[in-house]
Amino acid sequence: MKEARIKKVLANMKKQGLTQIIVSDDDALVYLLGKTPGSAERLGVLFIKEDGSLDMFVNSICCFEAPEGVKLHLHQDGEDVLGELVLHADSGQLGIDKNWHAKWLVELIQRRPDIKAVHGSGPVDDARAIKDEEEKELLRKAGELDDKMLSFAVNQLGKGMTEAQLAKTIEDEFVKAGAGPMTEGQLAIYGANCAQPHHDPDSTLLKEGDAVIFDLFAPLNGYWCDMTRTVFYKTVSEEHRKVYETVKLAQQAAIDAVRPGVKLADIDKVARDIITEAGYGECFITRTGHGCGLTVHEAPECSFTSTDVCQVGMCFSIEPGIYIKDNVGVRIEDLVIVTEEGCEVLTKYPKNLIVVG
Amino acid sequence: MKEARIKKVLANMKKQGLTQIIVSDDDALVYLLGKTPGSAERLGVLFIKEDGSLDMFVNSICCFEAPEGVKLHLHQDGEDVLGELVLHADSGQLGIDKNWHAKWLVELIQRRPDIKAVHGSGPVDDARAIKDEEEKELLRKAGELDDKMLSFAVNQLGKGMTEAQLAKTIEDEFVKAGAGPMTEGQLAIYGANCAQPHHDPDSTLLKEGDAVIFDLFAPLNGYWCDMTRTVFYKTVSEEHRKVYETVKLAQQAAIDAVRPGVKLADIDKVARDIITEAGYGECFITRTGHGCGLTVHEAPECSFTSTDVCQVGMCFSIEPGIYIKDNVGVRIEDLVIVTEEGCEVLTKYPKNLIVVG
Repeated sequence: MKEARIKKVLANMKKQGLTQIIVSDDDALVYLLGKTPGSAERLGVLFIKEDGSLDMFVNSICCFEAPEGVKLHLHQDGEDVLGELVLHADSGQLGIDKNWHAKWLVELIQRRPDIKAVHGSGPVDDARAIKDEEEKELLRKAGELDDKMLSFAVNQLGKGMTEAQLAKTIEDEFVKAGAGPMTEGQLAIYGANCAQPHHDPDSTLLKEGDAVIFDLFAPLNGYWCDMTRTVFYKTVSEEHRKVYETVKLAQQAAIDAVRPGVKLADIDKVARDIITEAGYGECFITRTGHGCGLTVHEAPECSFTSTDVCQVGMCFSIEPGIYIKDNVGVRIEDLVIVTEEGCEVLTKYPKNLIVVG
Repeated sequence: MKEARIKKVLANMKKQGLTQIIVSDDDALVYLLGKTPGSAERLGVLFIKEDGSLDMFVNSICCFEAPEGVKLHLHQDGEDVLGELVLHADSGQLGIDKNWHAKWLVELIQRRPDIKAVHGSGPVDDARAIKDEEEKELLRKAGELDDKMLSFAVNQLGKGMTEAQLAKTIEDEFVKAGAGPMTEGQLAIYGANCAQPHHDPDSTLLKEGDAVIFDLFAPLNGYWCDMTRTVFYKTVSEEHRKVYETVKLAQQAAIDAVRPGVKLADIDKVARDIITEAGYGECFITRTGHGCGLTVHEAPECSFTSTDVCQVGMCFSIEPGIYIKDNVGVRIEDLVIVTEEGCEVLTKYPKNLIVVG
């Protein structure tokens, strides 16, 4: 069990006015307990009360052994699996994990109308958002791996692979290098498909003049790297060059804006203003970035409505983009850690415009 | 869009007294629309009302094109993403997808106290539970693939691979054979680790006298196969043989009990009684089975408290097991489809006790 982290969560609960919370997210459990039962569609939650009591409600099938200090409540398939948890909760506000499955929450509310469900991930998310030294080191190592993978990926262009084949080739290379299971496939996107930020790699083949987006992300020792580069194949049109240079400028300006005390909404604005001034405001259809750690997308959030503020130790992506339907898409993404003076950039693959082949 | 399926869902809504439901599960969306935006942590739901209106609330980043007949409501990162959906819902009962993330439900309830959230997956789950001819054919093909993979897996024993290496080797073979992305790794489990039904393959090496559990599951053209066999390496003890034969007997008896009109709880009981009579009742710590289709675990449920009843076209697993801590585990699993006369078994790898090497 990670006692210092539990303490942070209890302090955050107090600050946020929460007396009891349910934690169900696997990565949150790993963060707090060092392991998770991996309950998938079965019930498996840690119940934290303000007095510091820790109760784990888990299905026997997971063979979960509770760390010292955690009281284990086992249930089996077919039993009233929610029964003990329903009795354990106190009246009033109950903080619910953002990712808990609605089936559990619906039933809990029905059986305990005296309970008021409220957002409950804050105490854990806020603790997780500030990385400790061990976590920073793991994120740096993950960033180094991502640099290698990006080089590998760029070197595969021109071998005749479809998007899907190239994405799989990169995934295999990640696994060879020691990466853990990836929740989604790698993104290798060609040409007009790049206009879809999350295009699912398919049977498209690479053509001269295509932009190529590589969005490569995988966990190494639990901590995720996440980097995107856009390169061009054989030639690049003047229009595409202008799009690329605009994104590059916006991304660097946003990185330069990072320092303790700055609002993440303002960092988003720095990038958004540059892209808007260049005439592409409507084509920047995503947020500027997201926190990264044990989960590839976690707190803080870097969007124009984010209420998060930069604090030393936060790790997040900066990834503005321009997406022009049926034409092109360009995204450049780095992971940064906020430092006293500004930020440390974890992903270092070059960002000058590259034409390959 | 799959109009016949939408019609079934509307009929089920009427039967279940639901006037409006939210569908968020990717596989449910694929079932109804033929595709999904794949929204992950972002909002992406289909809202179905009893009048047949279909409204999709999706983030622009997904570049989702709505099928004809579906009204699209787009939002972007940073906006009030739940805003339109909150306005769209009617007062009173609202059926919620079992897998919807609690963060959305918590906010919806807070903003619309006139809405009462209830379980809402039933109409879609019940439709999905009864496979049509096209789905049955896809499940048969997936079953054939699983037979091949089981043969492949058994042939790898004795090559010195750890559990994790063998699991990865099987996964790669699945991919080569055309299987789609697997949500979890394959299970290749040795010796005493077999006592944990969902043991995560690790660096354990195979020893003489070990049981080996292969639980192999992957989607082929969207539909999952799922089969488990337990074999022994070089020798098998009398105790392990007795455990194996008990599970084999229980599993076959449960298969023989399948026919239209039989309660799935009674099928569970058939297997459970045999295992209990043999003295291993406490060691059968799982349900007997689960539905299988677009999702590897879906309706119906075969547990001792299941209220589901066999209907022609249902597809589910039958997988009793005996798990003895620090000693052994044996599980035998087949997928069956309910027919007029009984059931069709989709997975055909032999079930006689096999000692390898």
